[in-house]
Amino acid sequence: MKNLMKKGNTIFFKNAPRITSYAAICGSKEKIGVIGEFADITLDDDMYGETTYEKAECKMLANAIALAIEKGGYKEDDIDVLLSGDLLNQIISASFAARKFNFPFLGVYNACSTMSESMMLGAMMADAGYVKRAVAATGSHFASAERQYRYPLELGCTRPPQSQWTVTGAGGCVISSDGDGVKITSATMGRVCDYGVTDVNNMGAAMAPAAAATIIQHLKDTGTRPTDYDMILTGDLGALGSRIVKDLTWEKGFDISSRHVDCGEIIYKVIESEFQGGSGAGCSAVVLNSYVLTKMSSGLYKRILFAATGALLSTVSSGQGESIPCISHAVELEY
Amino acid sequence: MKNLMKKGNTIFFKNAPRITSYAAICGSKEKIGVIGEFADITLDDDMYGETTYEKAECKMLANAIALAIEKGGYKEDDIDVLLSGDLLNQIISASFAARKFNFPFLGVYNACSTMSESMMLGAMMADAGYVKRAVAATGSHFASAERQYRYPLELGCTRPPQSQWTVTGAGGCVISSDGDGVKITSATMGRVCDYGVTDVNNMGAAMAPAAAATIIQHLKDTGTRPTDYDMILTGDLGALGSRIVKDLTWEKGFDISSRHVDCGEIIYKVIESEFQGGSGAGCSAVVLNSYVLTKMSSGLYKRILFAATGALLSTVSSGQGESIPCISHAVELEY
Repeated sequence: MKNLMKKGNTIFFKNAPRITSYAAICGSKEKIGVIGEFADITLDDDMYGETTYEKAECKMLANAIALAIEKGGYKEDDIDVLLSGDLLNQIISASFAARKFNFPFLGVYNACSTMSESMMLGAMMADAGYVKRAVAATGSHFASAERQYRYPLELGCTRPPQSQWTVTGAGGCVISSDGDGVKITSATMGRVCDYGVTDVNNMGAAMAPAAAATIIQHLKDTGTRPTDYDMILTGDLGALGSRIVKDLTWEKGFDISSRHVDCGEIIYKVIESEFQGGSGAGCSAVVLNSYVLTKMSSGLYKRILFAATGALLSTVSSGQGESIPCISHAVELEY
Repeated sequence: MKNLMKKGNTIFFKNAPRITSYAAICGSKEKIGVIGEFADITLDDDMYGETTYEKAECKMLANAIALAIEKGGYKEDDIDVLLSGDLLNQIISASFAARKFNFPFLGVYNACSTMSESMMLGAMMADAGYVKRAVAATGSHFASAERQYRYPLELGCTRPPQSQWTVTGAGGCVISSDGDGVKITSATMGRVCDYGVTDVNNMGAAMAPAAAATIIQHLKDTGTRPTDYDMILTGDLGALGSRIVKDLTWEKGFDISSRHVDCGEIIYKVIESEFQGGSGAGCSAVVLNSYVLTKMSSGLYKRILFAATGALLSTVSSGQGESIPCISHAVELEY
């Protein structure tokens, strides 16, 4: 038996796999915000030349994957595996995107924490020498998510103030066992947390306890303090959820307030009385694979904890009266 | 950079992680077949004391996981991670089952190949020293699958002869870096194959090319012949799909006919003019984690290639005119 490279729920990567390339595509509403100038492709029309929202979502994801490969100077043959999933039933965006490539595909799903989950698995595979290069990618589309999870846009339903806006966008990165780039030094696997929230319009409140649990677990396992990181980046808690995660970690003796940034909070200009910000698997995928990795590569940030969060519900589970189990996986990035 | 432990799409496990425990639960129709006497729990009522089919499915999966842990003499604290997924939208069976345990959860989804996908990832994590013990598990339920993918049972729709029967059952195993049991010596990652089949009642035909591609890839990567294996076990191709996979591999110069067994073909007594046998993520999960691993542990089989197959469609993708992309991942088992 080999020595265990794990402490608590955190896995340490001795060979520090690198993010050697990344790419992001975002929609027309996302383009206006902070990530607009950092995304590789910004859409004017969220249909992206397709006939359905689902096909547009799949095209964004496939193109983000292809672009990440191309930007790294790689060819399709250089990639050993794709790790991807998305919010659509049976992760069809990822599966149909994978059909376009000739490398193997491992489907993953932890809702909006799919970006950090796929990065974690990709880092494990590259670190252990199972693959040279893995692509981790995910995405989402506002219109396909609305009609699957809530109401078709054509119905014109009113959105409650605690709701978030599913990001139209996709992002992906190439994780390599060699080359230059941001290093993945450790990863903390999340456990399912369920505080009994049943309001499907209040994902931020449901997911905040999972984010807090994983961030605290990571800090304990690694023996670090929040101030050791330039940024503790959550996925899509939104404005309300961000306040809750700061409270929950503070209660346990970890003050993350000076370091915490939420992708959902920064992707749009948030007016909290109107809505809470961005959500969806594409939210953290786009922010990480555009603004964050670009700023890290330029030396602005040296160490970031990226903890994307996912709400593991479905319309069936909510319809049957269940509360919302949530999860958060974290990867530690260094440059 | 470490030495690559991969050839082609096959990963080799130097430390040969072991399946130290396994468990299976099956429904009332499955109980009558060959696996009835090997499953740990067989249901008389497929509702399993729950109020909905989905809750029954989740309960089966959670209990199969708990039983696999218990049968190995483990406690919950001995398990480092759960790798699981299922056919329900947003893999709610796996997510809600994971809620019952205090170890981390990584959601995976490749339809009915989820059993071999999760075993492959668990073997990687145990082999590399990231975890001591991982649980790989999946399941399905006839009634929840029918109403999600086709029609609610209450409608009484007629089934076409090329259709398969989604297995009611769940199975799981503990993959350890130490202890005794069947060894996982290698794993072949599958690529998405799509031969343009659009008939959602003919999954066997859609999935057979993916199974053939992965089996051939495995034989090439490992330099083995079909007769080097006591059994080449596919997941749920059914009677028609099994004939196609034998033809497709034979055409490429690999005659697997003397070694091929399909879980979907053996789980029920198949009358091909009526229906094609079992399917669903639970099909291969139950057959592997009852009959196959028991017979292997008794020395009857020494070497098995387990290649579960998945159809990566959804009702939305089919409704939008798409064909059915399929995938198959294989793990090599030795005792």
